[in-house]
Amino acid sequence: MAATRTEHDLLGDREVPADVLWGIHTLRATENFPITGRPISSNPALIRALAAVKYAAAAANRDLGLLDAERADAILTACREILDGQWHDQFVVDVIQGGAGTSTNMNANEVIANRALTLLGHRPGEYRYLHPNEHVNLGQSTNDVYPTACNIATIMAVGVLSESMHHLQKTFRAKAEEFRTVVKMGRTQLQDAVPMTLGQEFGTFAVMIEEDRARLEEASLLVHEINLGATAIGTGLNAAPGYREAAVRHLREVTGLPLVSATDLFEATQDVGQFVHLSGVLKRCAVKLSKVCNDLRLLSSGPRAGFGEIDLPAVQAGSSIMPGKVNPVIPEVLNQVAFQVIGQDVTVTMAAEAGQLQLNAFEPIIMESLTSGMTHLGAACRTLADRCVVGITAHAAHLRSDVEHSIGLVTALNPHIGYQAATEIAKEALDTDRGVAELVLERGLLTADRLEQLLRPEHLANLQS
Amino acid sequence: MAATRTEHDLLGDREVPADVLWGIHTLRATENFPITGRPISSNPALIRALAAVKYAAAAANRDLGLLDAERADAILTACREILDGQWHDQFVVDVIQGGAGTSTNMNANEVIANRALTLLGHRPGEYRYLHPNEHVNLGQSTNDVYPTACNIATIMAVGVLSESMHHLQKTFRAKAEEFRTVVKMGRTQLQDAVPMTLGQEFGTFAVMIEEDRARLEEASLLVHEINLGATAIGTGLNAAPGYREAAVRHLREVTGLPLVSATDLFEATQDVGQFVHLSGVLKRCAVKLSKVCNDLRLLSSGPRAGFGEIDLPAVQAGSSIMPGKVNPVIPEVLNQVAFQVIGQDVTVTMAAEAGQLQLNAFEPIIMESLTSGMTHLGAACRTLADRCVVGITAHAAHLRSDVEHSIGLVTALNPHIGYQAATEIAKEALDTDRGVAELVLERGLLTADRLEQLLRPEHLANLQS
Amino acid sequence: MAATRTEHDLLGDREVPADVLWGIHTLRATENFPITGRPISSNPALIRALAAVKYAAAAANRDLGLLDAERADAILTACREILDGQWHDQFVVDVIQGGAGTSTNMNANEVIANRALTLLGHRPGEYRYLHPNEHVNLGQSTNDVYPTACNIATIMAVGVLSESMHHLQKTFRAKAEEFRTVVKMGRTQLQDAVPMTLGQEFGTFAVMIEEDRARLEEASLLVHEINLGATAIGTGLNAAPGYREAAVRHLREVTGLPLVSATDLFEATQDVGQFVHLSGVLKRCAVKLSKVCNDLRLLSSGPRAGFGEIDLPAVQAGSSIMPGKVNPVIPEVLNQVAFQVIGQDVTVTMAAEAGQLQLNAFEPIIMESLTSGMTHLGAACRTLADRCVVGITAHAAHLRSDVEHSIGLVTALNPHIGYQAATEIAKEALDTDRGVAELVLERGLLTADRLEQLLRPEHLANLQS
Amino acid sequence: MAATRTEHDLLGDREVPADVLWGIHTLRATENFPITGRPISSNPALIRALAAVKYAAAAANRDLGLLDAERADAILTACREILDGQWHDQFVVDVIQGGAGTSTNMNANEVIANRALTLLGHRPGEYRYLHPNEHVNLGQSTNDVYPTACNIATIMAVGVLSESMHHLQKTFRAKAEEFRTVVKMGRTQLQDAVPMTLGQEFGTFAVMIEEDRARLEEASLLVHEINLGATAIGTGLNAAPGYREAAVRHLREVTGLPLVSATDLFEATQDVGQFVHLSGVLKRCAVKLSKVCNDLRLLSSGPRAGFGEIDLPAVQAGSSIMPGKVNPVIPEVLNQVAFQVIGQDVTVTMAAEAGQLQLNAFEPIIMESLTSGMTHLGAACRTLADRCVVGITAHAAHLRSDVEHSIGLVTALNPHIGYQAATEIAKEALDTDRGVAELVLERGLLTADRLEQLLRPEHLANLQS
Repeated sequence: MAATRTEHDLLGDREVPADVLWGIHTLRATENFPITGRPISSNPALIRALAAVKYAAAAANRDLGLLDAERADAILTACREILDGQWHDQFVVDVIQGGAGTSTNMNANEVIANRALTLLGHRPGEYRYLHPNEHVNLGQSTNDVYPTACNIATIMAVGVLSESMHHLQKTFRAKAEEFRTVVKMGRTQLQDAVPMTLGQEFGTFAVMIEEDRARLEEASLLVHEINLGATAIGTGLNAAPGYREAAVRHLREVTGLPLVSATDLFEATQDVGQFVHLSGVLKRCAVKLSKVCNDLRLLSSGPRAGFGEIDLPAVQAGSSIMPGKVNPVIPEVLNQVAFQVIGQDVTVTMAAEAGQLQLNAFEPIIMESLTSGMTHLGAACRTLADRCVVGITAHAAHLRSDVEHSIGLVTALNPHIGYQAATEIAKEALDTDRGVAELVLERGLLTADRLEQLLRPEHLANLQS
Repeated sequence: MAATRTEHDLLGDREVPADVLWGIHTLRATENFPITGRPISSNPALIRALAAVKYAAAAANRDLGLLDAERADAILTACREILDGQWHDQFVVDVIQGGAGTSTNMNANEVIANRALTLLGHRPGEYRYLHPNEHVNLGQSTNDVYPTACNIATIMAVGVLSESMHHLQKTFRAKAEEFRTVVKMGRTQLQDAVPMTLGQEFGTFAVMIEEDRARLEEASLLVHEINLGATAIGTGLNAAPGYREAAVRHLREVTGLPLVSATDLFEATQDVGQFVHLSGVLKRCAVKLSKVCNDLRLLSSGPRAGFGEIDLPAVQAGSSIMPGKVNPVIPEVLNQVAFQVIGQDVTVTMAAEAGQLQLNAFEPIIMESLTSGMTHLGAACRTLADRCVVGITAHAAHLRSDVEHSIGLVTALNPHIGYQAATEIAKEALDTDRGVAELVLERGLLTADRLEQLLRPEHLANLQS
Repeated sequence: MAATRTEHDLLGDREVPADVLWGIHTLRATENFPITGRPISSNPALIRALAAVKYAAAAANRDLGLLDAERADAILTACREILDGQWHDQFVVDVIQGGAGTSTNMNANEVIANRALTLLGHRPGEYRYLHPNEHVNLGQSTNDVYPTACNIATIMAVGVLSESMHHLQKTFRAKAEEFRTVVKMGRTQLQDAVPMTLGQEFGTFAVMIEEDRARLEEASLLVHEINLGATAIGTGLNAAPGYREAAVRHLREVTGLPLVSATDLFEATQDVGQFVHLSGVLKRCAVKLSKVCNDLRLLSSGPRAGFGEIDLPAVQAGSSIMPGKVNPVIPEVLNQVAFQVIGQDVTVTMAAEAGQLQLNAFEPIIMESLTSGMTHLGAACRTLADRCVVGITAHAAHLRSDVEHSIGLVTALNPHIGYQAATEIAKEALDTDRGVAELVLERGLLTADRLEQLLRPEHLANLQS
Repeated sequence: MAATRTEHDLLGDREVPADVLWGIHTLRATENFPITGRPISSNPALIRALAAVKYAAAAANRDLGLLDAERADAILTACREILDGQWHDQFVVDVIQGGAGTSTNMNANEVIANRALTLLGHRPGEYRYLHPNEHVNLGQSTNDVYPTACNIATIMAVGVLSESMHHLQKTFRAKAEEFRTVVKMGRTQLQDAVPMTLGQEFGTFAVMIEEDRARLEEASLLVHEINLGATAIGTGLNAAPGYREAAVRHLREVTGLPLVSATDLFEATQDVGQFVHLSGVLKRCAVKLSKVCNDLRLLSSGPRAGFGEIDLPAVQAGSSIMPGKVNPVIPEVLNQVAFQVIGQDVTVTMAAEAGQLQLNAFEPIIMESLTSGMTHLGAACRTLADRCVVGITAHAAHLRSDVEHSIGLVTALNPHIGYQAATEIAKEALDTDRGVAELVLERGLLTADRLEQLLRPEHLANLQS
């Protein structure tokens, strides 16, 4: 039979397993929110961020003489351990929870208090020596601790995603170099348009990803503004004079992030605009990456009854019934992650809109949405780069042949024979299945030399030699 | 100088142009809601529906002896005129308005009262003879009149859209017959899969549209449940005994619709679930129609460097710079309408979720979203049928050639030579650019006769002769 | 050192742990899709559904003499075991995967083949005796197996959610009975309107939930149409004559569900309309449940500076800084799940719209979205019923007092003193902070007796005695 | 009988009304896209932007000697006139159109050409003197003209919205000053929390709006990067050397905007990331403004059975049945516009994701969504400021009384009597309906003097004197 300890809160007494670091508040939360089965420890960045905030608060309280050295040291050590990856399994409340993050904050307070107690030679639950609320949570409220931790965890997640996008961008850039001179037909509205190179096409992918990455980094800057010290609603009630400045300073040190204190603590406490903003930019990234994957799937359609411009590397058998079939499974997985991210943006939006008066109670689902979205998208970028893009090959001869037989070539003759004449040539070429050059010559509109000069694919593609 | 008349409400006196049928409440509403510039008369079905509801209410009140015959007749005549399309220009409040439809109801009350007054030989504004609130609105509240009218207008709009979808379905069905024997490669994940016919492909479009149409009609049935008689919140306060039954009966007659009284008037007054439901089904239609258009654009990609399976009829020049270019502009316009409908579903969802306690105050935006969505989608279906689908032609020879050169044929040999052997054949065919049949014969896996029998496209496509 | 076995596919050889039931296709899939870290076994209904489909296919192939009794029995036994909950840990591919479910199907084929091999006295990987593709997948394609399994898993998930909603509905209904005679002010647009009872308010919650549940069950019926036998694209290529009928019959038996074969197999293979539809209805449920929770939070606002009409039971301490604060954490968690479901509907929508030609490759994210949405919403309904609604108490005296002091009472006098006079009374009551009755008497508009009769709250609320 | 002129394109001849400035391409487009009935002239900023682009192109072509002075002058004059508001009624193609804006560009080319022809003394349609494609569209493609014009129109629309938001922000700021010393209870999760001032609450509204406005302005900067000179796909085919630089320079001059040429013209031609981004930020604004309106509606709920903290000015009668009822109609209209904007963001997202290869064909619906969203939101901000916020009054005495009777006061005693003791006080106060101060004194936990000092509302609210 498992030993237990008794803990008490305003609702009464409950038995808690003797050896766990969480306590009665956490226990009740796990019972109240049996939603996803996934604990908040599934987001390690959030656990680390919570520890960083608690560390900074304790250090500030110690500096101000509100927390004695012994208790402060024990709390700081406990926080350090969590920052180093220990005790994460004690963060057990569900990722989707009511209460504006209170249960997450309480879980952290209890784990840190109980770990500190054991460091001080006491047993978990002996809160008379060191109390989750009165010492670990001193001068704090869920309403400043949790948003601050969410901001920090988000900044970390952006960093990881950004790195993955950068890796993908570089992979596309290398391919663009490789395909620099491969001429092909450009298309608008899925119809043959005018010539370009495959290198230009892949280079565009690289540019788009890099552009989005820059926007993501900018959005991340907005998340550096924190409300630590606001306590419950922004008045800073119960936070000692000097506490806020000290806590933010310590938090900057322990995280290494250039965090700044919000200029309006009321706004910073109730507003989740930074997350709506970031989610919108994340959605922008998802949209673009999905578009890139759509293009890759289209360009590699075939092998015989499709565009057949490029081959994606085979990474698994494509079909349980069609032998030899190879499918664009890697772009497909990214597409799906993109759809998820786009849906999650609606979730974030609704959660933000539902905030009332001095607090937004729905930050947990915002965090869950943003975190899983960024994690999945980063993973999808990596697998796209490493298992797909890097191994793409081009059917250069087929591509050049498409250009040479294209009706779109006539566009280049516009300035020389006029839009109307060019239109007639195009129409006849299409109706008779003949070539543009042939028809121009037949009609004596241009000389062969001049024509050849005008229609050189590299020239049309504006390829810098 | 324009003559005016003076009207009065709880905020004081205002001058109203002497000859208009609307009054002070409408005037204030137009000042309060200068949002879109589009008046509610841009949705004629709603104006008709309002007139029908007012007609039914007046008839019921007359039956119950609450409204004298003279006033009743005047009101009924005014409503009839509006049902016949008159006076719509007097419905001037903005389609996006606060107040849960109060301004729309007030606008209707005023127009009907003033038209009735002129029918009775009085002048607009002489409300002592016939009052917008006390007579036209007798026994009613915006909160039952407006939702009931919205339901009726929605049923009408569904009818129109359904007819357009039916027209499109029939157009696709005719094309499916025309293309019944045109064999082609089926594709999964944009990769060549196994043979089918173009008739099967177009037949699927027809089936999908008809299926969605059936769902739309079902969803429309849910909108037939109305809350007329609920008055302000569902208690029916101020509606006389027997009023509800009589009004609903008259409303059924005047609209010709099998409307039923809601079993729970509280629920029916505050709930907009029927619109969320309908919007979801409308979105389903949009998704499917967009998918069909995506396919049409893909199948017609080219003319030379694309799938090139079908030609969409040219309906306008495709480019201001590329002579002879013809683009799939008709499918493209439907795609865009579909994106709009999908977005509007989110708008409807948020408006529904924002309802509080005994009323949803956001029904105007729900109506505006649903109505414009259905109108645009219906128009897009018509133009797709009449300006695109009907004129589609197929490149049958090219399609058959694709099948004959396809590696996907090997799938049919699976049961005869095994998945493993078939996989090897497929791989070699792809690597060496040779044909499946040729390789099978070379390896002596099947006789030529047997092979020809197994690979007959019509057989593979399961085409019933 | 762990022992391995060597397996082979079209890409070459790979080592697989000797004792696992999955094989080389699964291995590659786990490497290709390192997205969420959650395996498909996190959706047990899907695993069971896959086993049911494989069972039915094997039984059909046995009946038709295509599969010998020994192999068939082994496969059937393996499927039975999975249906009974065994071997789920062998289903390891990620819930978000490319390839239209191919990896899930391959994972199932391999697990069943290897389990069947061990039942036959062989070792995993000895596919010469029983092959994942040639025997387990006989006559099947991912493109009919996977959609069919998804449909079945979805039907199961709807059943569970429906049960939870029913439980919540009954809980609200019981409360409605309890509060049957508690009169209170009804509100429209958050403004005091006219009287009703708290029982009517809670009864409305019950009605709304039951209505939505009915719609959900209807939407589930659409999911009973399956494409088993369609194989790759709907032509039924490689499925023997009679196979489809036999397989569907067996599937009905093993699942106990009234599944029907789709009338158009092309449509059923490429279309995911049933999921878009169900997702839309699920969203409808989420919207309504969120609205109910919004109302509960509003009615329980306070305790002193809010509506203060009801108390939600305290289930945990509400604040780490504000002692004694109790928050509506249970409704809040449901709100968040609702936001998630609404976002997931957009994900499902985009995934559906992205389907191309003969297949929708994005069904995995559709399944993941729908399944997690239904699971979370069901859990939230249960916790709402059991930890919140059941313990709600009312401040009946406060509510009655609100009614008696309400200006909204004047509405009931409309038919007796006219809208204009009533408006003046209302205005004066508001300006002078006096009571409606008092002013009516003062002005001599009605006698005291008549007034008392007209203003009896129970009468106004239309409460049936 | 109306006179006509005959025009010709690749599809054949058509009769066009003799006196209109648009031509055959426009005619066909109006027939092809009968979707909304709203012409592009409903967005005057877009018409002006088109004229600016055509002006700049003509000036550049003239500078380069590609366009003779006579034709150039006529074109420039025509463009100037359109910039000045003339001829907008000639822009008749539907706001929702297929073809990636081709019809809009053609409409502009034709109007400008025909106006220029009349300026030159010719008649409309006499294109041999000056041709819509060969002269007005010289060196251009829809694919660079239209995106560039869309960018410019968007910048203008942002400017207007930003101004409206600024006006609203200032209105809130003035109110915050007015309510600076009005103490009230702050609330978290709709439960009484700790004291603050109404000035702080309204100040937060001002801060949030200003913050969002800053983000909007930043997003607008991204829209200043244009692809003019890219022609069809980014290669700049048919644009003369020097044309791009000259055209952009002229465009900067004529618009007065600091536009810059995109560094990668391929990316700039196919990418609509700037609009996805802007739409996301616009959604952010909508979310925040909706939240503000939710708060206003909540704070003004009542008049007697609600929060009753503030009164919104009455701007119209609130009910057709409930006399004297005044509803928060102005915030309600903004809420609805916000829901529309949020939905439109999904539309923009889907349209962006659907872009393929070298072009996004769905920019018209993106423009329509963004433009109507910004216009409506700006109008809603203005009406909110001028018809609601400016006239808000506070019930200061009631608010102070709420604070004094609040249990939340106990939070301030936390540091002095401990969380546990404070929790007990709070519980007893709630259970017995007594005051916090009274109980603290009764238990002798603090002296009366000390208590009064600690509980001074102004102190608790952190109100700077």
